[in-house]
Amino acid sequence: MIIVCKKSDDASVEMLTGKFESMGFRTHLSKGTESTIIGLIGDTSKISVEDIEAIDIVEKVQRVSEPYKLVNRKFHNDDTVIDVNGVKIGGGHFAVMAGPCSIESEEQIVSCAKAVKAAGANFLRGGAFKPRTSPYAFRGLKAQGLEFLLTAKKETGLPVVTELMSLEHLDLFNDVDIIQIGARNMQNFEMLAEIGKCRKPILLKRGLANTIEEWLMSAEYIMSGGNENVILCERGIRTFDTATRNTFDVSAIPVLHNLTHLPVIADPSHASGKSALVKPLAKSAVAAGADGLMIEVHPEPSKALCDGAQSLTPEAFENVMTDVRKLCGLENKIL
Amino acid sequence: MIIVCKKSDDASVEMLTGKFESMGFRTHLSKGTESTIIGLIGDTSKISVEDIEAIDIVEKVQRVSEPYKLVNRKFHNDDTVIDVNGVKIGGGHFAVMAGPCSIESEEQIVSCAKAVKAAGANFLRGGAFKPRTSPYAFRGLKAQGLEFLLTAKKETGLPVVTELMSLEHLDLFNDVDIIQIGARNMQNFEMLAEIGKCRKPILLKRGLANTIEEWLMSAEYIMSGGNENVILCERGIRTFDTATRNTFDVSAIPVLHNLTHLPVIADPSHASGKSALVKPLAKSAVAAGADGLMIEVHPEPSKALCDGAQSLTPEAFENVMTDVRKLCGLENKIL
Amino acid sequence: MIIVCKKSDDASVEMLTGKFESMGFRTHLSKGTESTIIGLIGDTSKISVEDIEAIDIVEKVQRVSEPYKLVNRKFHNDDTVIDVNGVKIGGGHFAVMAGPCSIESEEQIVSCAKAVKAAGANFLRGGAFKPRTSPYAFRGLKAQGLEFLLTAKKETGLPVVTELMSLEHLDLFNDVDIIQIGARNMQNFEMLAEIGKCRKPILLKRGLANTIEEWLMSAEYIMSGGNENVILCERGIRTFDTATRNTFDVSAIPVLHNLTHLPVIADPSHASGKSALVKPLAKSAVAAGADGLMIEVHPEPSKALCDGAQSLTPEAFENVMTDVRKLCGLENKIL
Amino acid sequence: MIIVCKKSDDASVEMLTGKFESMGFRTHLSKGTESTIIGLIGDTSKISVEDIEAIDIVEKVQRVSEPYKLVNRKFHNDDTVIDVNGVKIGGGHFAVMAGPCSIESEEQIVSCAKAVKAAGANFLRGGAFKPRTSPYAFRGLKAQGLEFLLTAKKETGLPVVTELMSLEHLDLFNDVDIIQIGARNMQNFEMLAEIGKCRKPILLKRGLANTIEEWLMSAEYIMSGGNENVILCERGIRTFDTATRNTFDVSAIPVLHNLTHLPVIADPSHASGKSALVKPLAKSAVAAGADGLMIEVHPEPSKALCDGAQSLTPEAFENVMTDVRKLCGLENKIL
Repeated sequence: MIIVCKKSDDASVEMLTGKFESMGFRTHLSKGTESTIIGLIGDTSKISVEDIEAIDIVEKVQRVSEPYKLVNRKFHNDDTVIDVNGVKIGGGHFAVMAGPCSIESEEQIVSCAKAVKAAGANFLRGGAFKPRTSPYAFRGLKAQGLEFLLTAKKETGLPVVTELMSLEHLDLFNDVDIIQIGARNMQNFEMLAEIGKCRKPILLKRGLANTIEEWLMSAEYIMSGGNENVILCERGIRTFDTATRNTFDVSAIPVLHNLTHLPVIADPSHASGKSALVKPLAKSAVAAGADGLMIEVHPEPSKALCDGAQSLTPEAFENVMTDVRKLCGLENKIL
Repeated sequence: MIIVCKKSDDASVEMLTGKFESMGFRTHLSKGTESTIIGLIGDTSKISVEDIEAIDIVEKVQRVSEPYKLVNRKFHNDDTVIDVNGVKIGGGHFAVMAGPCSIESEEQIVSCAKAVKAAGANFLRGGAFKPRTSPYAFRGLKAQGLEFLLTAKKETGLPVVTELMSLEHLDLFNDVDIIQIGARNMQNFEMLAEIGKCRKPILLKRGLANTIEEWLMSAEYIMSGGNENVILCERGIRTFDTATRNTFDVSAIPVLHNLTHLPVIADPSHASGKSALVKPLAKSAVAAGADGLMIEVHPEPSKALCDGAQSLTPEAFENVMTDVRKLCGLENKIL
Repeated sequence: MIIVCKKSDDASVEMLTGKFESMGFRTHLSKGTESTIIGLIGDTSKISVEDIEAIDIVEKVQRVSEPYKLVNRKFHNDDTVIDVNGVKIGGGHFAVMAGPCSIESEEQIVSCAKAVKAAGANFLRGGAFKPRTSPYAFRGLKAQGLEFLLTAKKETGLPVVTELMSLEHLDLFNDVDIIQIGARNMQNFEMLAEIGKCRKPILLKRGLANTIEEWLMSAEYIMSGGNENVILCERGIRTFDTATRNTFDVSAIPVLHNLTHLPVIADPSHASGKSALVKPLAKSAVAAGADGLMIEVHPEPSKALCDGAQSLTPEAFENVMTDVRKLCGLENKIL
Repeated sequence: MIIVCKKSDDASVEMLTGKFESMGFRTHLSKGTESTIIGLIGDTSKISVEDIEAIDIVEKVQRVSEPYKLVNRKFHNDDTVIDVNGVKIGGGHFAVMAGPCSIESEEQIVSCAKAVKAAGANFLRGGAFKPRTSPYAFRGLKAQGLEFLLTAKKETGLPVVTELMSLEHLDLFNDVDIIQIGARNMQNFEMLAEIGKCRKPILLKRGLANTIEEWLMSAEYIMSGGNENVILCERGIRTFDTATRNTFDVSAIPVLHNLTHLPVIADPSHASGKSALVKPLAKSAVAAGADGLMIEVHPEPSKALCDGAQSLTPEAFENVMTDVRKLCGLENKIL
């Protein structure tokens, strides 16, 4: 960590370096004409940049090493491969999680599960608890929805992924294969800490205005609780642009692959909000190196109770899968 | 609500208008050369724009009336005045909530409470549960912190405001006067729904990338649960700009005053992240019509365990208050 | 165009509809309980939304048809194919424009031209006039740089593309094959109008915070001058995210293909600012349907006078091209 | 400047420090376990961060001193006061520039000039050349508009400010008192360099997605040409928020006052795009320390050919001025 001090007398700078040394750091001083620079040597991951910047003689602070350790590729070079009931994600294994935004009935989720399985999906997704901007909108079938989802799992053998919206519901998730933490809960730190104590794979969606570093820090929360099974999911960020619901940050995929060993998947449905864009965005994600995709599929999108505008019909999904499979071939991904 | 349909045959449009009429809406048709427009007349607040956009012949949808009702000034023209143990907020009554970011010890919070009271604050703020980006950072004294806060309340008589981070802690908040919902929980819909059932005043901070409409929808969640005591707090939004921690959206204050009857306060400390900017931003908020301020004050900012860079010393806070009082005078606010 | 009026007396609304009718529009009225809606039928592309919103009884205005016509795919369904000295772009023809950010010497640009040609590029790029944030930075070899570029064109036969920064330099661009309008000049309307009068192909980069509609309006400026040869180039937008220099908006590619008949290429070098990201982003662009790529290649990136951090060595570029060719094969693009 | 190197052998680091020393810098080395840090001592304002980051062993680069010098308050502590025909801006002198967005006729601009003068404005603004997103919109009366503006100057004695859109028009600006560089030309570097050669005061608006540092670098362009009369004008930035046309960045005012000696004014009309918000935003700007305001006033906003939605009537402007004067009193500004 590099600390740039304002023009100040030697005594103040000495007091500061003394303070750091008493905390166990080695320090290294460099005096310029305009400012003095202190290099801090040691594990600075527990120090907050803001706290140092609060010190009166400090002008700015620059981290040299990343503030995350467990998720950091520097200390764990091999790709993490997550095994979900025999289906693998990461390290060359490609995951396709497909299904409706909301679970609406047993029939709907079961038929949808069969359709996406036939088209090549290896996971079933479906929401039982739905985050909705409006208190007047449909918020999911809740516990009953989970039951329907587990029926679909039983009928197709597909492992299931579904969103947890409150720790109070955790008991209901025993037979769920992957717990999804939604974009709006990416920095729900109490939830992250708690979920770190279980051993189920966690799908951590990126918050809509969160940096990649903040996202990795949230993954670090989960891993620091002892749960090493974290999958990151890029789902678009919020920008000034209104042509799409969110702006799909495709660069996040290779950027994350450099910084972390965790698998990274993409959700082109939420990223774009429009079914016509799902195919090109899904393909761009595979070409950029994604370890998987999460795609909304609904038997009759125009009757969907939620997010119909971005859902594919089973036929359209099959068509996407044809291209995805070709690209996985080029990228040497196992699907 | 206005629904613009793509060029399509009369039968499809008729089927759609029929569907809306069966839902209890009146419809109004307007045929152009390129598209047909359906006007929907009736209460559309429970209809989701995305759901309508999912219908294949629909090109775009435009709301005419706002999707929120209880918070809407159109249906409740008078300013809401919230009475917290005799101290009022809104409708000409100005609130100043001051105190440390984190409660660090009984002595710290009590002395800080006395100092901010002496300088003119009418509420004490202080965090017991702290949201932190890093799992390795100090996350507050938790239950013990709340106790210290209540001691400071007893010693000074100042009503207290502090953040709730998980519903599991709600029982500990019985003697807290205002429950703060932090920026990262602004769309924690389970929390909003639950908190709507209590009758304590809620301070709802704006999420860092949330629109004003989303913010009002979150307030609508709370009000639709039956709790009418909602205070909105602008605390800066996330933009491309890095000169300040967040970009203080001062326009949000007059925009909200047009749209809602709820009181609106500003937090210049979090908005800027820098103590030197607190005074000019606090003043700009008052001049723009804010109903109050939330300001971080710490006896020794450079020793703060959290957010020291943006905390004022008690002396600096007094200096801010001198100017705030003059501006309140000009604005006819009671402080 | 739909105009939502505030609750107002019939006389005011009649006056307004009368005004529109006198301008040659047909109007269509729909009265709700809260507001009256006027539908405007006719060519509204010359009406400004803001002007209508200024009228006191108007609450909001929504366009139904796009404000651009010449660039609109609705009125020109076939892909525009641009022929540059026999090399085609668009409609299945894939362009690869490669070369250094800045032209530094005759030797540098000639050797670079040979290298990128050998690796499969069909255009040479290179900057003679360089936009630089700082007045103290290297701003290009200017007229001499253009001469060196034209020498490289002669030696390799590659058509060349280079940026115009001021209309005063236009005379020097006679032998340039494609004139580039940089991101910072995307809304330099005087330049757009002037450049519309020439018949050379124009490469129009997206401004760093411009919406897709604004971008298309800038292309409309050029086309309305009579120049139909416009190529759009996505080069990343500015967002809160700092992991990359800009955020590459890969969705812009399919979105544009739906809205316009003009070819769309991508610049992964400027989008990311980091050479390690050029390959995955280039691939994602091809997979999303791009009609071409613009890539920075420099013989010795670490000695580049400008933008070295994002430049590829000729070897790295060859490696990118191997993958690009495979993807073009999948996409049925001719390269 | 601090250069963080990746783990690398001593020889490479030595070669790099040798290179810097040969360029006239002193270097200072600090070796950590993970990386080596080079401190560069000397005038680094001409070095580009990107160029250094292109060097293979370099991981990141952090500036310690600002890249601008002439605009920097560190080297010029006193506020710059700009004298425009006897009317001063900066250093306690408050400027109010008011008038229509577009000049539409001699009568319109003269009557508007008289009205704003009567209400207390000390400058007349009005656009003769108008930047418009659409090629089909009204783009100003151009040369004739300038003549009308100068007539209004003669009739009222108010100095005038108007926008320059192309260097080709510069000859027409001889009698204009302040040349405005619009937001879209903030990084038109050829224009900045040229305008730096004249001695007229320049009003430099902030680009809609430009950082404060980029803005100051553009001011540095003008000053490095020899023109010291630069006024900065905050006019809102582009964010995700759509409640207002732009997001008024009120913090920019105190941030700039810390970094530069140049005067800073605010344009609440363009920042908000809505006349109802002009008053609260104007007041917030004064309270935050602005040295002036630029406000759109039009005799009949609903008939304005451009930007009517944000224009005030003369009566509304008078009402704003009443409050502005009171706030200027509190702030000890001379108006």
